[in-house]
Amino acid sequence: MVEVDIAVIVTRKTGPAGGCAVGTFGQHLLAEYHGCEADILDDQDRIRALIRRAAEAAGANVVAEVYQPFAPHGVSGVAVIEESHLSIHTWPERGYAAVDFYTCGDCVAERGHAVLLAGLDAQRAELMMVHRGRRGPGGSLHVDSHRQENRASEQLPLVGEG
Amino acid sequence: MVEVDIAVIVTRKTGPAGGCAVGTFGQHLLAEYHGCEADILDDQDRIRALIRRAAEAAGANVVAEVYQPFAPHGVSGVAVIEESHLSIHTWPERGYAAVDFYTCGDCVAERGHAVLLAGLDAQRAELMMVHRGRRGPGGSLHVDSHRQENRASEQLPLVGEG
Repeated sequence: MVEVDIAVIVTRKTGPAGGCAVGTFGQHLLAEYHGCEADILDDQDRIRALIRRAAEAAGANVVAEVYQPFAPHGVSGVAVIEESHLSIHTWPERGYAAVDFYTCGDCVAERGHAVLLAGLDAQRAELMMVHRGRRGPGGSLHVDSHRQENRASEQLPLVGEG
Repeated sequence: MVEVDIAVIVTRKTGPAGGCAVGTFGQHLLAEYHGCEADILDDQDRIRALIRRAAEAAGANVVAEVYQPFAPHGVSGVAVIEESHLSIHTWPERGYAAVDFYTCGDCVAERGHAVLLAGLDAQRAELMMVHRGRRGPGGSLHVDSHRQENRASEQLPLVGEG
C-alpha cells in the first residue's frame, strides 16, 4: 500500500458563501459520464490532466493527488483539494466514468463538470447535487438537484432511475 | 502539490453482486457524523487508523491513501480502495465529519459506518445511500435510502432537511 502524508499544513479555503473554515456546509456533485471515449478513460496521464483542468475551472486548489491503474482496464484517481476532494473512477470497456466533486467555499463544481463532459468526450451525463453539512435545523444531507444532459448541454428530463 | 502514481496495477475487485470488473454498478454511502470528539477529529494518525479499520470491516482493500492536515483544525483523508474510495473530511471545532464510502463488488459499507460511528464517538449520524452505475434502462444515480441514527444505533425519523 502507498501511504502519503502531506507535510505542509494548508489553511482551509474560505469563501463568501460560507467556506470550510467558517462552516461545514458543502456541495457534493455526483456526476456520471456515459458514452465516453475508451482510450481517454484508460489513459492515466490524460485523466490526471483532465482532473487538474476541472479543478482549476471550478476554482479549486489541488494539494495532493493519487492515481491507481486497474487491470484489465480503468483508472481511479483522487485529488485532495483545499475545499474537499475531486475523484474519478473509469470503466473504459463501458465508456463510463463516475466522478465526485465535493467542495465548500466558493468553488463552482459545474464549471469542472463542463470540462469533464468535453474532455471525456461523453455523450451523456447524469448529475446529482447533494448539499452536505449544517446550515440550520434538521438533517444535513439534501438532494438539491438531479438531471441528465447530453454533450450539447441540452438538459434532458429524467425518465426513470435504474 | 504532492503527486503519487501507483506503480502496481491492481486487478479490480469482483463480487457476487456484480463487481467492478463485471459491471459499473456501485453503492455510494454519504455519511455525516455529528457530535464527534474534537480531539479524535484533529488527530491525523487516529483518523487514518480508523479509516483503515472501517475499510477492513467493510471488506474493502486499501491500495493507496493520502492525508492532508488543515489549519487551524481538521484533516482530509482519502483511501483509494480496489472497490473505489473511502474519504473523510473533519471539522473538529464543529464536532463534524463528512465521509464517503463508494464501493462496488461485495463490500458492505454499513459495517464500515458502524466502525466510524463508534470510533469518532459520534452522537448522531446521517446516512444517504446512492446507487450508481448502470443496471438497466433509465438514469444511473438513485437515492436508495436516507436515515438518521444515534450512537445507540437507534434509527430516527428524518424530521427535515436543511
